[in-house]
Amino acid sequence: MCVEPARHSDLAMPAIEGYAAFRDALLGAGLLVATGVRGLYGRSGLFERVCEGFDALATREARRVAQGSDYEVLRFPPLIHRGDYAKIDHIRNFPDLMGSVHTFLGSEGEHMAMLEKFEAGEDWTRSLRPAEVMLTPAICYPLYPTAAGTLPEGGRRVDLLGFAFRHEPSDDPARMQVFRQREFVRLGTPEDAIAHRDEWLARGEELLARLGLQPKRVVANDPFFGRGGKLMKATQREQELKYELVAQIVPGEKPTAVSSSNYHLDHFGLAFGIRSAGGGVAHSACIGFGLERIALALLATHGFDPKVWPREARDVLALD
Amino acid sequence: MCVEPARHSDLAMPAIEGYAAFRDALLGAGLLVATGVRGLYGRSGLFERVCEGFDALATREARRVAQGSDYEVLRFPPLIHRGDYAKIDHIRNFPDLMGSVHTFLGSEGEHMAMLEKFEAGEDWTRSLRPAEVMLTPAICYPLYPTAAGTLPEGGRRVDLLGFAFRHEPSDDPARMQVFRQREFVRLGTPEDAIAHRDEWLARGEELLARLGLQPKRVVANDPFFGRGGKLMKATQREQELKYELVAQIVPGEKPTAVSSSNYHLDHFGLAFGIRSAGGGVAHSACIGFGLERIALALLATHGFDPKVWPREARDVLALD
Repeated sequence: MCVEPARHSDLAMPAIEGYAAFRDALLGAGLLVATGVRGLYGRSGLFERVCEGFDALATREARRVAQGSDYEVLRFPPLIHRGDYAKIDHIRNFPDLMGSVHTFLGSEGEHMAMLEKFEAGEDWTRSLRPAEVMLTPAICYPLYPTAAGTLPEGGRRVDLLGFAFRHEPSDDPARMQVFRQREFVRLGTPEDAIAHRDEWLARGEELLARLGLQPKRVVANDPFFGRGGKLMKATQREQELKYELVAQIVPGEKPTAVSSSNYHLDHFGLAFGIRSAGGGVAHSACIGFGLERIALALLATHGFDPKVWPREARDVLALD
Repeated sequence: MCVEPARHSDLAMPAIEGYAAFRDALLGAGLLVATGVRGLYGRSGLFERVCEGFDALATREARRVAQGSDYEVLRFPPLIHRGDYAKIDHIRNFPDLMGSVHTFLGSEGEHMAMLEKFEAGEDWTRSLRPAEVMLTPAICYPLYPTAAGTLPEGGRRVDLLGFAFRHEPSDDPARMQVFRQREFVRLGTPEDAIAHRDEWLARGEELLARLGLQPKRVVANDPFFGRGGKLMKATQREQELKYELVAQIVPGEKPTAVSSSNYHLDHFGLAFGIRSAGGGVAHSACIGFGLERIALALLATHGFDPKVWPREARDVLALD
């Protein structure tokens, strides 16, 4: 009897189309674990290995990009100082995505009163007070306040990894409420920032292509809130401040950003008093890779079993 | 001229005593980065390598403990379903440590009103509504709701890593508001749970001793809230439900827990409907290692430069 070996296309979920179906397939395969909240998932060991494989690949690539001038590694937890949050205009531009952290600061009597509401099924959270922290909407935000002052000659290159939060419950498994970004940030002159953006976009495109994805570079805009946000979107696009690398993730739906690069002009330099070595207000740019989205794009493209992925993708991600 | 090589003791901060001084020394050395919030820090690349070294060591140790029956790897982000949070009694026992996530769900008009308060320096957070999620107080909490139903024969062994949040602003750098736990959880019969606890406590003690720390096993209790909490503390200690491995971290202060093991009895089994294969309500136990606290204990014990740490610690943590 002649048994043909499985081809990739057989495993690439030919019958799945749409956000909910793709999500359910991932849950069914145990790659993600449902929590009962839309956009909040546990990750399996296999899913994590794919994320870690890309993370290590990005580390190797950063060494090539930096060419001797190493990236400083910094890791921030998923929270940001409430006072710093107030300086980045997020409350104006993306209030619907924010995560404000509240806690209980009251007496034992107030605790009893809160528990009574809790037990009666009423809104007990009115007894809470805002804590000193917010969930961070992007993992480079906590960096800028720590960079206040004058940058060293040549500026700074910083390597970040962490969880970002965006309140956008969705059936699309690629739109998680809390997800990891691997970021490379450049602080310095406008030329430094633009060169960083351009170089990393090219490198990112190349990396993703080596993995067998078909990334496309597009000018993009952030999802600014409300009618007033329309102008912000148009300006951002006109000035080409935001580029995304998009790839096919959800079968039957439009491509999703797996990487995003932002040139912030002097936004953070002004907000946090960062000056370049020459004395001018520092400019900044970042490129971020969405680890979960890249893993999802690979699973959607090559199938749910990495053992049958193309040789080069397996090698580059050290999946053996 | 004869220059004596530095000895470890010279680098082990002989002049530092007390929480704030130790914190300032860590910040001064760039191992931690201040954020302006007490207990919230960025971590340097070197600090991370120590954490990752211990994390990898725990992975190797888990393989030995499991003896063929592998741990399932699961990774949860730092958030938990608000409804699941409501089932674990945290609001009763530790309200002062909680992190409730709130977001803006209003119209454009309500947004304008919120911004007016924000600009006037008033409490704008009253315009927010509770999101579907809370920050997770312990990284095994998100696991239990996903384990509802009947466990497989032999129960489950789960390997976890993630950020936990506890609102307890402090000058003690070992008391971070958001920190990583590496946990190993056993779900099954009471005997399974107790054996897991006992075996891991012995292994943990051995691991920490190999790193040159001097861990001590102590019966402990959680910091239950208020006067009513006193009884909970006493009961927990009497039943020996919580053990900690404590080690010296902050020079001049009392030892700190670097690992904690809890036998939950059938608490989570009852709360989330988890049954063992035999049909009884499942019991559970976990052991958690505090990655940041272990890194801090190593830095306090051996000095801020891992290059001069004892050979075995460097080898075991793969710091070369």
